[in-house]
Amino acid sequence: MKAKDVKKVVLAYSGGLDTSIILKWLQDEYKCEVVTFTADIGQGEEVEPARAKAISLGIKPENIFIEDLKEEFVRDFVFPMFRANAIYEGEYLLGTSIARPLIAKRLVEIAAKTGADCISHGATGKGNDQVRFEIGAYALNPNIKVIAPWREWDLDSREKLLAYASKHGIDISKKKGKSPYSMDANLLHISYEGLILEDPNNAPEDDMWRWTTSQKDAPNESEIIEITYKNGDPVALNGKELKASKMLEELNRLGAKHGVGRLDIVENRYVGMKSRGCYETPGGTIMLKAHRAIESITLDREAAHLKDELMPRYAKLIYNGYWFSPERKMLQAAIDESQKHVNGIVRVELYKGNVIIIGRDSKSDNLFNEAYCTFEEDSVYDQKDANGFIKLNALRFIIAGKNGRKID
Amino acid sequence: MKAKDVKKVVLAYSGGLDTSIILKWLQDEYKCEVVTFTADIGQGEEVEPARAKAISLGIKPENIFIEDLKEEFVRDFVFPMFRANAIYEGEYLLGTSIARPLIAKRLVEIAAKTGADCISHGATGKGNDQVRFEIGAYALNPNIKVIAPWREWDLDSREKLLAYASKHGIDISKKKGKSPYSMDANLLHISYEGLILEDPNNAPEDDMWRWTTSQKDAPNESEIIEITYKNGDPVALNGKELKASKMLEELNRLGAKHGVGRLDIVENRYVGMKSRGCYETPGGTIMLKAHRAIESITLDREAAHLKDELMPRYAKLIYNGYWFSPERKMLQAAIDESQKHVNGIVRVELYKGNVIIIGRDSKSDNLFNEAYCTFEEDSVYDQKDANGFIKLNALRFIIAGKNGRKID
Amino acid sequence: MKAKDVKKVVLAYSGGLDTSIILKWLQDEYKCEVVTFTADIGQGEEVEPARAKAISLGIKPENIFIEDLKEEFVRDFVFPMFRANAIYEGEYLLGTSIARPLIAKRLVEIAAKTGADCISHGATGKGNDQVRFEIGAYALNPNIKVIAPWREWDLDSREKLLAYASKHGIDISKKKGKSPYSMDANLLHISYEGLILEDPNNAPEDDMWRWTTSQKDAPNESEIIEITYKNGDPVALNGKELKASKMLEELNRLGAKHGVGRLDIVENRYVGMKSRGCYETPGGTIMLKAHRAIESITLDREAAHLKDELMPRYAKLIYNGYWFSPERKMLQAAIDESQKHVNGIVRVELYKGNVIIIGRDSKSDNLFNEAYCTFEEDSVYDQKDANGFIKLNALRFIIAGKNGRKID
Amino acid sequence: MKAKDVKKVVLAYSGGLDTSIILKWLQDEYKCEVVTFTADIGQGEEVEPARAKAISLGIKPENIFIEDLKEEFVRDFVFPMFRANAIYEGEYLLGTSIARPLIAKRLVEIAAKTGADCISHGATGKGNDQVRFEIGAYALNPNIKVIAPWREWDLDSREKLLAYASKHGIDISKKKGKSPYSMDANLLHISYEGLILEDPNNAPEDDMWRWTTSQKDAPNESEIIEITYKNGDPVALNGKELKASKMLEELNRLGAKHGVGRLDIVENRYVGMKSRGCYETPGGTIMLKAHRAIESITLDREAAHLKDELMPRYAKLIYNGYWFSPERKMLQAAIDESQKHVNGIVRVELYKGNVIIIGRDSKSDNLFNEAYCTFEEDSVYDQKDANGFIKLNALRFIIAGKNGRKID
Repeated sequence: MKAKDVKKVVLAYSGGLDTSIILKWLQDEYKCEVVTFTADIGQGEEVEPARAKAISLGIKPENIFIEDLKEEFVRDFVFPMFRANAIYEGEYLLGTSIARPLIAKRLVEIAAKTGADCISHGATGKGNDQVRFEIGAYALNPNIKVIAPWREWDLDSREKLLAYASKHGIDISKKKGKSPYSMDANLLHISYEGLILEDPNNAPEDDMWRWTTSQKDAPNESEIIEITYKNGDPVALNGKELKASKMLEELNRLGAKHGVGRLDIVENRYVGMKSRGCYETPGGTIMLKAHRAIESITLDREAAHLKDELMPRYAKLIYNGYWFSPERKMLQAAIDESQKHVNGIVRVELYKGNVIIIGRDSKSDNLFNEAYCTFEEDSVYDQKDANGFIKLNALRFIIAGKNGRKID
Repeated sequence: MKAKDVKKVVLAYSGGLDTSIILKWLQDEYKCEVVTFTADIGQGEEVEPARAKAISLGIKPENIFIEDLKEEFVRDFVFPMFRANAIYEGEYLLGTSIARPLIAKRLVEIAAKTGADCISHGATGKGNDQVRFEIGAYALNPNIKVIAPWREWDLDSREKLLAYASKHGIDISKKKGKSPYSMDANLLHISYEGLILEDPNNAPEDDMWRWTTSQKDAPNESEIIEITYKNGDPVALNGKELKASKMLEELNRLGAKHGVGRLDIVENRYVGMKSRGCYETPGGTIMLKAHRAIESITLDREAAHLKDELMPRYAKLIYNGYWFSPERKMLQAAIDESQKHVNGIVRVELYKGNVIIIGRDSKSDNLFNEAYCTFEEDSVYDQKDANGFIKLNALRFIIAGKNGRKID
Repeated sequence: MKAKDVKKVVLAYSGGLDTSIILKWLQDEYKCEVVTFTADIGQGEEVEPARAKAISLGIKPENIFIEDLKEEFVRDFVFPMFRANAIYEGEYLLGTSIARPLIAKRLVEIAAKTGADCISHGATGKGNDQVRFEIGAYALNPNIKVIAPWREWDLDSREKLLAYASKHGIDISKKKGKSPYSMDANLLHISYEGLILEDPNNAPEDDMWRWTTSQKDAPNESEIIEITYKNGDPVALNGKELKASKMLEELNRLGAKHGVGRLDIVENRYVGMKSRGCYETPGGTIMLKAHRAIESITLDREAAHLKDELMPRYAKLIYNGYWFSPERKMLQAAIDESQKHVNGIVRVELYKGNVIIIGRDSKSDNLFNEAYCTFEEDSVYDQKDANGFIKLNALRFIIAGKNGRKID
Repeated sequence: MKAKDVKKVVLAYSGGLDTSIILKWLQDEYKCEVVTFTADIGQGEEVEPARAKAISLGIKPENIFIEDLKEEFVRDFVFPMFRANAIYEGEYLLGTSIARPLIAKRLVEIAAKTGADCISHGATGKGNDQVRFEIGAYALNPNIKVIAPWREWDLDSREKLLAYASKHGIDISKKKGKSPYSMDANLLHISYEGLILEDPNNAPEDDMWRWTTSQKDAPNESEIIEITYKNGDPVALNGKELKASKMLEELNRLGAKHGVGRLDIVENRYVGMKSRGCYETPGGTIMLKAHRAIESITLDREAAHLKDELMPRYAKLIYNGYWFSPERKMLQAAIDESQKHVNGIVRVELYKGNVIIIGRDSKSDNLFNEAYCTFEEDSVYDQKDANGFIKLNALRFIIAGKNGRKID
């Protein structure tokens, strides 16, 4: 991007060191007006301080956007994703991935509102987040321009960055207690990368984890909770209705207390390399298990199986940044169609990292019927029907065998 | 089946009460010669006593087949299935399902050997096992006949069964310590059904579980083990090579000690109803997690994703009894093709129900390369390449947007 | 089914010999009241004569239902199916399959209206149609009873049938010009089975085909037509708006004239055997090709590919009789979601069996843009972007290769 | 790429104007040694003249590679692909796509042989072929360098190209009869792009097509041929065994004569835009239809359906250039596993663009059995079995309905 091509840029601004450097660099390099956008998506840090920081860097008050997106994040992104039981590569609950489209959406919307022609973000050039931000932005506005400083500048080492900051009067003092790991956090999860994690044969150190109690330190007493589902979404906890963000907060609190939701994996990035990540997803881990449990008694068998077959592709779309794509919407339409009857209550026991389903019930939509499973006669199922069922399902083999085909 | 159509029948015979009643009933009803087949697939009970029992019921010594199938079971059925990371309905490790094809195969082979024209089994008329046995048998011999007593006779209550047994001098004294639940066991798992489980809103009682220590009673000290993989199969434990059945036995012992592998679900049976089951799969639960871990560093991304997309269908085929089908073999060919490089070592920590991956390494086949993930420059990856990658992946959206299409 | 269990039965009644025999047999065997249901779904025969026939067999006038379902059939069943580009086993356009759910639905609805507890149909015991009728009926009313005479009675040869008819005064004189083949017809297609077709190595005789001109006798002049699509459905022909059934009638007329839509295949029945069928689907063959053409310029690439991957499963669901299943609805929701922008005009040339697309255009939703494909520079696509696109897509191979992995 | 980074480059050289310009440009720009590689893959032009041309441009004789790859192309690439019934986006037989991996493979192998560190090709920067060449090359040699002149140079118009050629003494006289369209040809197909085709609402001109007779000019007499299949591949024509390339040549001759295999579509390129292409695939069109016909009597139902569901993804992999990927090999393993019994003979009638199957037979592997389809009783199929088959397949709906769930 050439400087003359950029008039005004909306920057995804955390208020931290890196995005402050970017802010400065954009002003210097592009001589353009900068709009800052700081969102609270539950990362657990105050967002309001970003205002003073931005002002100190010369941003006009009317160009500072600070928003609480927690409810929208959980209601419109996290919950729809959990309807799908989405897991990437068998393990990862997509905590970072699912937060990116919302940020992209607000960047583009704020650009429209402020007359900006460009957006910018602090994601690095080797990661997935750059892709998620930018594909999301292009999908929403094909004319938007994107500046990704990490792919452009020559500040390609920590030293150069700090030197640049010092030179421009940006505070580089390290926040007390700040983790040395590269982290991402929101209401759904925290992720950790870097340092000793860069060897997948190293276990993470105990003090890396910032959120969940370790399984070993978790309470010796288990705790039982009750989650009410409506149309596939959790709507009440222990009988008390909660809005989406509050529900996730509470499940996070409970999960974290009981050592639930730690994960340590090597995953495949969209940009082509494998990468090691550690994740904490306390509430999400409970939700996945509980959602499967309520589905187990309310969802039709083949609907469930179809969901399971579509899920890896759905998860991959979110991981790769295609939330706003037509194909994600097609899959979402199929998934949502299946959730109309996913209503009922799940009881869950939490104990030292374990999420144990101890009961599921649905007054309105239960498809389980004890009478039909038992040994005894019932009116619906004639055991002799199994003869024909088996015979016709085996018929293709029987004909093949009689025609001389051998199983090898 | 009419009596005159049956000459000689091979019965899957456990030596227990139910199959002893069936044995007698076959003799009475069909006036046919009965061959008994008793297999040790790791169910944890002696199989040899079945010989005396069979003889006491009038079976000729040459018609009694007692076999140790543990190694064949694990090597040719369990391990190939775990290469696929197979899980049915997001939870179930297919412990019962995977044992049935081998029994079906031996029944058919023993029928061929003894000149029998028929096989028989003790699976009930509402369950999956009848389907698995019979589809397997028909696939292997299209001319085999099948007698499924539970679908034929009028002994349709516990009382009638016991009366029949008494009348025919079959010992009905209850074995001491025998579980009141309907159970199935083999080297991979134990399942429980019936009684209070018939209400999915009831949690299982603590004393139902026969194998694993409860998470609460498991040791307070965790234990670290090291599993070596070769071509996707575990071949050594803590550096010691083990044959397949021994490997699974050891993992079972370790998992059971640490409260690993309990599961409580409602599942969808192939014959159409939902059913509640509790399962213990200590070794299998470790294997699933460890196999994913070794794949995470040795398997290509798209191969892994393809496996994940095919897995639900593969699992369903096994659940439904189609092990010997062409479609299962096609999927197995694809899965096995992917496992050539799945070699290396996984370290696993076991603690109170948790299976925690704490390291994975592969001397020969590691695809993880720290240098390519980091922030710093490297020779393989030019960060500017991400520009083009994102731009062309987003191009369909950009063109759509420029042509006036709106995201709704 | 025992006679005493049946009070009143709704029979799918064509007015022909076979269903007249069934009508009589139901009266005799079950001593029950019979309601007849005769539908015009475009089979090309008058339905009104069925009334007199039914009355002559003792049916009360208020128990005779004769309905024109052509519009509902095409609008609510055929068109939604064609949105999916559904083809079974690469060839078959599902002409019979798609008509069955509607009949099942009306049978169940008429049963509810007339207080009948049972339905009956004339489908044989080896075919797919019995499954489609009955699964449809059970899905709509779990308490409905079904009598399938062909699976029950002992009239298991043509001779016995005719004897039974004669005995009961049913007219067995053969209609003039009636095909000797077993046929099914509706507005979408005609099917032929039996006689020399029972050897798949025999070609059908020329005079078997009743609808389409043979390719050799078709006009030497081609004909060009223009079909307008809206939301994936054809809505106008040569600029003239037509309701759904009329549209299909016109396309049938045109296709038939030009020898379009003959098919001769061996297909796999749901009940387990292979079966030979010949089909004429003149209008449907045009619609499939034209729909793909309009999608080719209006549908997003990945939406199109997802549709293609889901299609075989969708087609199989319809073939097997699962129109009213949750899984079919999930897929339909996904498909319909994709059709919002499938608007425009397709020009098609018909010539001696060939359906040739000669133009496609969409004023509102064209995603094709000449400027982006050409050799010359454009503003959207920087050719250098391809460097990064290729590099990152190949990165997993490059890393694998550098880590020593060989392609074998 | 900088000049100093390139030592020796292998160029995919056709001998035509464009690649001659590239040859010169490589010499000028990179001051490197150039190796030319010219392959006969059935494009219908002499390859030997490329030798003199190369020498005239200063290439050393030992650096000129001219090879006949027709047999390898058909045997190892085309035939395996046709086992899958591969079609991209419902229409395209992948004629260009399937030829690229072989070229990439030979480029990399010749580079290894000649000590070259780099390869180069004449594919443009907006097309799919650059991706196919380069991904293939990187998969086979992660250290190979690639020069794609069309993405690098500033010869970005026809005028500049011709000026450059003139300046360097390259013959720019147009070959007589040369098509004005952008074409690609090999033994499987010819493709056409550009000119009036750039508006998808324009039909192609009759004289554009170079290979097939138009349907209107094709013979008025149809022609019947007989193709013998072995393990899914065609091995004999009219009873005469033919090697792979000869088989395809003959089928091309026959198809072309009868107007078979013209196609006119808008397709989605991997690089993101839609593009219009016309294709002639005479032999391939026959093979697709004939292969499906032989599968229809020899392939198990579920194997066939699994193939159909996997096919779109397989086709996409080939279209996008992933022939050498692990995921393509996994799918190929599954497909090949299914072809063991695909043996027999198909009779095909060719007439004015139509490919009509008129018979299929398999002495060794026929799964069709007339006796099992007919109305009459048989020993394998008890029509009453259908009761149980239907009942249990519908059971989930029946239970749902009895539990109060409504179909909406």
